[in-house]
Amino acid sequence: MDKRIDKQLAFSLEIDKVKNIFRQTHLSGNGRNENDAEHSWHMAVMAYLLKEYANEEIDIAKVMIMCLIHDIVEIDAGDTYAYDAESLKTQKAREDAAKERIFSILPEEQATELIALFDEFEAYETAEAKFAHAMDNLQPLILNNSNNGGDWREHNVTAEQVYNRQSKTKLGSERLFEITDRIIRENIKKGNLK
Amino acid sequence: MDKRIDKQLAFSLEIDKVKNIFRQTHLSGNGRNENDAEHSWHMAVMAYLLKEYANEEIDIAKVMIMCLIHDIVEIDAGDTYAYDAESLKTQKAREDAAKERIFSILPEEQATELIALFDEFEAYETAEAKFAHAMDNLQPLILNNSNNGGDWREHNVTAEQVYNRQSKTKLGSERLFEITDRIIRENIKKGNLK
Repeated sequence: MDKRIDKQLAFSLEIDKVKNIFRQTHLSGNGRNENDAEHSWHMAVMAYLLKEYANEEIDIAKVMIMCLIHDIVEIDAGDTYAYDAESLKTQKAREDAAKERIFSILPEEQATELIALFDEFEAYETAEAKFAHAMDNLQPLILNNSNNGGDWREHNVTAEQVYNRQSKTKLGSERLFEITDRIIRENIKKGNLK
Repeated sequence: MDKRIDKQLAFSLEIDKVKNIFRQTHLSGNGRNENDAEHSWHMAVMAYLLKEYANEEIDIAKVMIMCLIHDIVEIDAGDTYAYDAESLKTQKAREDAAKERIFSILPEEQATELIALFDEFEAYETAEAKFAHAMDNLQPLILNNSNNGGDWREHNVTAEQVYNRQSKTKLGSERLFEITDRIIRENIKKGNLK
């Protein structure tokens, strides 16, 4: 038995579960809730298409794999809504335990590599992490905007809360933050955000 | 108005619809049908994890974006089941029309780039296309195998049909075809494939 390839295939099967982790964001056309696999796919495609707007030079392969794996920990830790203050307090502890269990299904050096990528994303320091986070902010923003701010209205989210989160997009892309700011202002004007 | 970025964001919103294109494959745990966004996400992660098994040297960023966009045409063309001979006859014409409409939402040079990537995938000639196709075969295989061959049993698929499709995995990866062959033999033995 080839242990290495069996571990890689066991991990490949395990991450199928991310398709059942649902987010607060709804699909366009006032659709159903989006799941983490769909969200990650969408972020990675957008990263590729919008890479010209990154503030710094980025390794796009690294940004894409970072986008693709950043929510795998939610198989165990669950989705934490960006504007749920209580859940945000315990998020790191829940996700740290999850990352150890899930990535350790892989051969050791691949587990180390993916944990390092996940930690790099979370640390928000490198050019790739900052741009991947810009996608993590922009992707639900364009869906929610297309649904006339339904996700914000459902949760009574304020403009201040949205700016607190979305203003970090600036760290990855000044240009995409200008677009973000335009979208937020339009939604304030429409009464979708208080 | 910045026409370029507006086109890129319009395309980003359009492709959200791929999350509503459902495949014949079911999620692990005898789950619901899988959609194209989830399938593409899964293929891209697997490509990254299994890249060491590619027969030839591959540009992994190119393989990943190829995996991520290869099913976008199905927004208009619908999913064509791998073992549905009638639908396979019209698949190319339907997908060609779809790729023109959908990718043309992008700025012209990005439309050209993504159409070229899609065509390269379909042509099955480059190292990247062959490895991406190996993922397109292996990803549903591991899900279906985990569900005791339920998708094959539902459609009365024969071992010959599965080998016709899956044997092309050899073109991208001899090693992954060995695994594929092992899985198919196990399913024949269990009576999941005739």
